[in-house]
Amino acid sequence: MNVPRFVFDPTVSSVVAAAEHATTAPAAAAVAAPDTSGPLSAEQLRLLDRYWTAANYLTVGQIFLQENALLREPLRPEHIKPRLLGHWGTSPGQSLLYAHLNRIIVERDANVIFLAGPGHGGPAVVANVYLEGTYSEIYPDVARDAAGLRRLFRQFSTPGGIPSHVSVPTPGSIHEGGELGYVLTHAFGAAFDNPDLVVAAVVGDGEAETGPLEGSWKSTSFLNPARDGAVLPILHLNGYKISGPTVLARNSEDDVRALLEGHGYDVHVVAGDEPVALHQRLAAVLDTCFDRIQAIQREARGRPGHDANGDRPCWPAIVLRTPKGWTGPKVVGGLPVEGTFRAHQVPLPHAKCDAAELSLLEEWMRGYEPASLFDERGAFVQDLARLAPTGERRMGANPHANGGRLMVPLRVPDFRNYAVDVPRPAVVERESTRQLGEMLRDVFTENRGANNFRLFCPDETNSSRLSAVFEVENRCLTARRIAIDDHVSADGRVMEVLSEHLCEGWLEGYLLTGRHGMFVTYESFAMVCASMIVQHAKWLEEAGRLRWRAPISSLNILLTSTCWRNDHNGFSHQGPGLIDVMLSKRGSVSRIYLPPDGNSLLSVADHCLRSHNYVNLIVIDKQPQLQWLSVDEASEQAKRGASAWDWASNSVGAEPDLVLACAGDTPTLETVAAAWWLRRLAPEIRVRLVNVMDLMSLFAPSVHPHGMDDARFTELFTRDKPVVFAFHGYQYAVHQIVHRRPHPARFHVRGFNEQGTTTTPFDMVVLNEMSRYHLAILAVQHSSLPAAHATELVAELTRRIADAVRYTRDHFEDRAEERDWMWTDEATPPSKPS
Amino acid sequence: MNVPRFVFDPTVSSVVAAAEHATTAPAAAAVAAPDTSGPLSAEQLRLLDRYWTAANYLTVGQIFLQENALLREPLRPEHIKPRLLGHWGTSPGQSLLYAHLNRIIVERDANVIFLAGPGHGGPAVVANVYLEGTYSEIYPDVARDAAGLRRLFRQFSTPGGIPSHVSVPTPGSIHEGGELGYVLTHAFGAAFDNPDLVVAAVVGDGEAETGPLEGSWKSTSFLNPARDGAVLPILHLNGYKISGPTVLARNSEDDVRALLEGHGYDVHVVAGDEPVALHQRLAAVLDTCFDRIQAIQREARGRPGHDANGDRPCWPAIVLRTPKGWTGPKVVGGLPVEGTFRAHQVPLPHAKCDAAELSLLEEWMRGYEPASLFDERGAFVQDLARLAPTGERRMGANPHANGGRLMVPLRVPDFRNYAVDVPRPAVVERESTRQLGEMLRDVFTENRGANNFRLFCPDETNSSRLSAVFEVENRCLTARRIAIDDHVSADGRVMEVLSEHLCEGWLEGYLLTGRHGMFVTYESFAMVCASMIVQHAKWLEEAGRLRWRAPISSLNILLTSTCWRNDHNGFSHQGPGLIDVMLSKRGSVSRIYLPPDGNSLLSVADHCLRSHNYVNLIVIDKQPQLQWLSVDEASEQAKRGASAWDWASNSVGAEPDLVLACAGDTPTLETVAAAWWLRRLAPEIRVRLVNVMDLMSLFAPSVHPHGMDDARFTELFTRDKPVVFAFHGYQYAVHQIVHRRPHPARFHVRGFNEQGTTTTPFDMVVLNEMSRYHLAILAVQHSSLPAAHATELVAELTRRIADAVRYTRDHFEDRAEERDWMWTDEATPPSKPS
Repeated sequence: MNVPRFVFDPTVSSVVAAAEHATTAPAAAAVAAPDTSGPLSAEQLRLLDRYWTAANYLTVGQIFLQENALLREPLRPEHIKPRLLGHWGTSPGQSLLYAHLNRIIVERDANVIFLAGPGHGGPAVVANVYLEGTYSEIYPDVARDAAGLRRLFRQFSTPGGIPSHVSVPTPGSIHEGGELGYVLTHAFGAAFDNPDLVVAAVVGDGEAETGPLEGSWKSTSFLNPARDGAVLPILHLNGYKISGPTVLARNSEDDVRALLEGHGYDVHVVAGDEPVALHQRLAAVLDTCFDRIQAIQREARGRPGHDANGDRPCWPAIVLRTPKGWTGPKVVGGLPVEGTFRAHQVPLPHAKCDAAELSLLEEWMRGYEPASLFDERGAFVQDLARLAPTGERRMGANPHANGGRLMVPLRVPDFRNYAVDVPRPAVVERESTRQLGEMLRDVFTENRGANNFRLFCPDETNSSRLSAVFEVENRCLTARRIAIDDHVSADGRVMEVLSEHLCEGWLEGYLLTGRHGMFVTYESFAMVCASMIVQHAKWLEEAGRLRWRAPISSLNILLTSTCWRNDHNGFSHQGPGLIDVMLSKRGSVSRIYLPPDGNSLLSVADHCLRSHNYVNLIVIDKQPQLQWLSVDEASEQAKRGASAWDWASNSVGAEPDLVLACAGDTPTLETVAAAWWLRRLAPEIRVRLVNVMDLMSLFAPSVHPHGMDDARFTELFTRDKPVVFAFHGYQYAVHQIVHRRPHPARFHVRGFNEQGTTTTPFDMVVLNEMSRYHLAILAVQHSSLPAAHATELVAELTRRIADAVRYTRDHFEDRAEERDWMWTDEATPPSKPS
Repeated sequence: MNVPRFVFDPTVSSVVAAAEHATTAPAAAAVAAPDTSGPLSAEQLRLLDRYWTAANYLTVGQIFLQENALLREPLRPEHIKPRLLGHWGTSPGQSLLYAHLNRIIVERDANVIFLAGPGHGGPAVVANVYLEGTYSEIYPDVARDAAGLRRLFRQFSTPGGIPSHVSVPTPGSIHEGGELGYVLTHAFGAAFDNPDLVVAAVVGDGEAETGPLEGSWKSTSFLNPARDGAVLPILHLNGYKISGPTVLARNSEDDVRALLEGHGYDVHVVAGDEPVALHQRLAAVLDTCFDRIQAIQREARGRPGHDANGDRPCWPAIVLRTPKGWTGPKVVGGLPVEGTFRAHQVPLPHAKCDAAELSLLEEWMRGYEPASLFDERGAFVQDLARLAPTGERRMGANPHANGGRLMVPLRVPDFRNYAVDVPRPAVVERESTRQLGEMLRDVFTENRGANNFRLFCPDETNSSRLSAVFEVENRCLTARRIAIDDHVSADGRVMEVLSEHLCEGWLEGYLLTGRHGMFVTYESFAMVCASMIVQHAKWLEEAGRLRWRAPISSLNILLTSTCWRNDHNGFSHQGPGLIDVMLSKRGSVSRIYLPPDGNSLLSVADHCLRSHNYVNLIVIDKQPQLQWLSVDEASEQAKRGASAWDWASNSVGAEPDLVLACAGDTPTLETVAAAWWLRRLAPEIRVRLVNVMDLMSLFAPSVHPHGMDDARFTELFTRDKPVVFAFHGYQYAVHQIVHRRPHPARFHVRGFNEQGTTTTPFDMVVLNEMSRYHLAILAVQHSSLPAAHATELVAELTRRIADAVRYTRDHFEDRAEERDWMWTDEATPPSKPS
């Protein structure tokens, strides 16, 4: 058969076809001749290559075989799995790096974890974790013998088995191979405050095209060699995505180098398809990189107190160009495969039913010489197995990748120390988040020894009124600082970078390696990283099912600058959508809190900071707001999730005619006001005001562990009385929550409804204020007042809306006197608008 | 008063304080001496500087003044607005660029639009659009006289006025200043297929930190100088975000240069705080850049048919380093302001109540010499006004920024040409998206002359079975191609890059400039760009209210690889959340379609491609699936949104006991199967099957224009009979939609529920199949069958679930025979599982 000849072109990371005759070359990359051009002795090189070969063999086996794992008999169709899944293309590169890092770890007793950006190379990582022995320790049924090998192959992407990509069940992993783009942000998060750790992070050239990945190279400006560990990025250019070429693989080497140098890296290129030379080159480069990391750290740590201003180290990074699907079939059906996009997934998709493909598969797998890799019992041969590190130095067993095992509990000061003194509701006004800022300041102080807490925020710490943290902590920047900077230091643990992706991803990496933190961002743009939060929630849900995964600290998200108070920013800044995103996640991991004031925020934050394995979403505005609850009341309500506020109700001790419910700070304010107006205008309607702080408490207990039972639900909301519900987010969210409760259609929800128009401060003030009259109108309409009286009241309230609009237009700024209605003393009349 | 002296440090884009005595320097940047070191004559330079000064004056005026706009009397507190909003920091830089681009446009008759990445410099862009005259043409009440100036100032971020950032109402804008990160992707999208257009895109150094922005520099690898326009990125380094320094401003000039060179740009740095020198330097650099753009295009266009392979042009880019809040107050209250983060928003926040600040403001504003800028009537003085371009060359009036005006309607071939022949339901199996691929192929062909259609996809066009487009179209790559590439060309209009952000953002830019397209991506990762889709929906909603904004083509989103069929990818790839995101958007812009098969997909796509001003979300899997509807039936159902399927019901002509409803392809399959089982096992239950293709049709007409009235709703779903609803997405979505319908609690929804566990193909098959029995069980449980009979049936169906699990485990692959139940002929029994 006349097939093209293939030549690796290191400038495009691909194999190009030349118009010459050639046979399908042997698949395995055998080491032909000794090469002493690098740090490896001939024997070292031979062994390392065989180790890599073993990993490749196991990778192919996982993709294809359900029987005959050791190829002890001729390969027959029934040995092939009925359905072929898994990604071969990236796998040989992952295994090559894993094997070489093993050598580094052993020689230097280095503390390394491995983050596989191209997560679909799952079989390669599983193969390596199996070869080093970790896999069998965690999953004893996948033992290091023939039966275990069979199980290893069969479990891969088949019934009752494991998924095809690196995931929660993969030992040593803190990075799911699914949604691409986060490997570097996770890696840096893991390295922060882990001075001895080196995080090897493989970046695929597909992943490298994503925005979040491109935005994470610059993490070097936040990595402090004196106190943090190191990240060794390895950009693996294998040329193709699913079917198209990758941008970086087609850029010139100069361009790729310039790009990474621009981000502050010292770039080492390793390119080739000739294993011997490549092994030597890669070994030499890894030695250089680890030497360099040690030198950077030694220098930084040898000069305590020295602030290396403007002297951000030039960290090493590797660019690895090898063929896609390296050592796999070169030609299938006359078309080039190795080094092309056709090697991306399963290169011999018809191996079960096509004799030619089956034969190619057998030739390919036998080329790896399995009999020389696994002994009679099916165990990995001793002279190769002993190349792996031992104990917790194995990358699959490194405790940093099962961070809960290393977690030092966070010391959280008593939240009551920061309480607002609230002698009675609605007389004190505060920026509630300031109180939290003071508490977080002391969290920093109390955990100084452990160095295990950081705040992550897109440049809004001050804007979110958490400024108190700067009394004891700085913003982090390892790049140049100047005199006029405000609390910026290479030693800071307030991480500010204008990227929600980077902030959230760093925090994920920090949490997954056993530390604690909080992500503070504007509600307006929280949806930017919604997909990352979803993926982390899925990770936690999975991890909760694996006993060997120790619990980690919760992902705490504080959203400020909310849709109801986005005065000068308008419509594009109004989006409470993250609430809906978290509502759809399972009760085992998802929490949503809408504290109405400062003391309730403190109580909720206290709970969240101490919790494990949750995603806690807290939504509260940063603007001055009336305070309702004493710290005891807040703490009590936080426990119950929702309470009736007797002081704002006129139905105490009796069944109300109507419930006014609210969730969220602005809706609470307007609902209390509506209740006040109703008491004034229609005291005959008996109203109960219910405040909901823990949104999940409204679900049934079968849906969410915080859910209240029907008895408690009925106690608060009655069984059949109308409920007018003012909600912070989209009103539909409440509709879906109460769907299964008695008479759900009686819930009349007023929520955010994409009010739109180019909102100005005026609009916001009026919208907010009109809400109270609208809520009162809704209440009147759903009350059982006589029709004539109700019509009269609605007309009166409608007049008040018009008054409010007019008044606000005329007296735009100083509206302090209107607050009079806030007094709970019914005798005090409101002054304006009257 | 002893205040620090400030010195601009061009290496950090900031003003640094020196410990010397100085007065607060005059605020305005006056041109002291002639400078002929650049292309500007002394007179040109003087006029250009004055033009810039006028824009700065109007910017400050918008932020601070409600009266005394021309400072014709001494400034008093009552002239100051009650609430000061707007971002001063970035504004002088925006105005400088706008003024200089005006010169370029006039001198070269260039066709330029202006995209302001730092959108919070809204007052600067509004000032410039006003100065060039466009603003008053569109908004005649903001005339070019004293009254208009007063209005211009008063409307800014105040009652009844405009928001503080560049937004939909800003003439000349296609880029909202809100969620940061998309200015370059919008810019490139606008430049594609617009050969004469130059898109000047200002990137703030805050925005430059976001992932999406960093990921968009590489768009040069997709810009073809022979047929596309140009993008001129201007990275504006002013040093600070809200309160922290920016990463790029602290990087060395070498690093910044390397970074952009790595992305393929030819970098020109313009740095300084001395206006005269800076004007000359900027003018010279702009001349160079526009010369270079012309040269690149001339060369590429002079060689038709020449494929400049590997010769991606080196496009010019500008790095502009000027002080933040340049020409503003240098010191306020003893603290440095100009050139620091304190200049970010309002630099004199207490101007209304603090006499010293008021005085500083007056000094600052008078420094601009307003009497020399505006004449007696308050009109912009003639010798400055005539510097602006005229007519549609004005950047605020350029029709490309109001793309609907230029839109050539898309020619959509008759979708019936691509129909699947479906003689009766459930006998034909197809990959439905292949049919769409054929239709899109012909869309490409039929619009070849207009060159106004592109497909945007993260490398999944083939994977999504749209391969037919490659019969006539290629993937686009202007970087190096090699022989083994599959349909890759610099001329391609299939845009594949592994970045949802970039794909979606390019398409937005393409649509906003009057063209058409489709974004095709995996449902699994659609949430990655959910926030962008939300922002575009908000834009469309706003634009719909402005008569001068011509309608544009809809944002069409096709999601494939759905949660129910993500066989080998598992839990991390299952996320139907974008449906919920779009549900919360207003009915005026938001559409969600769940076609159950190929013909319904064609009908829906036809409608979407022809529609305007919507975000159309279409969800359908790419795997082989049974076909239900003939093209006529599909077309009819698409019009109605939802229909009863008589052939799958046994209640035709009568009120059913129970409705089985479904929305989405897999749920439809399982519901038809459940109905079949019910007919077999409990024929006495009269079942109606209702298929919902247009999810919004379930809303009330008051919520969504597609919504069906209660009569039609009752006709389909009855008034009070139980409805068992199989839904593609999270079940809560249906709960919220039916909340207001009669007896909402009778809707029992089975949807995606984060089933989790590390899903394997087995799990998916079983989950899908179990659904049919679970649906049947639900139906039985909610039917009015006698309890004993119901219990017996539930037990029988439960056994079938166990059988299915066992059978699937034993016979994992070949399950064709199970399809027998699909026959609508009741006489044909299902073979397995029995």
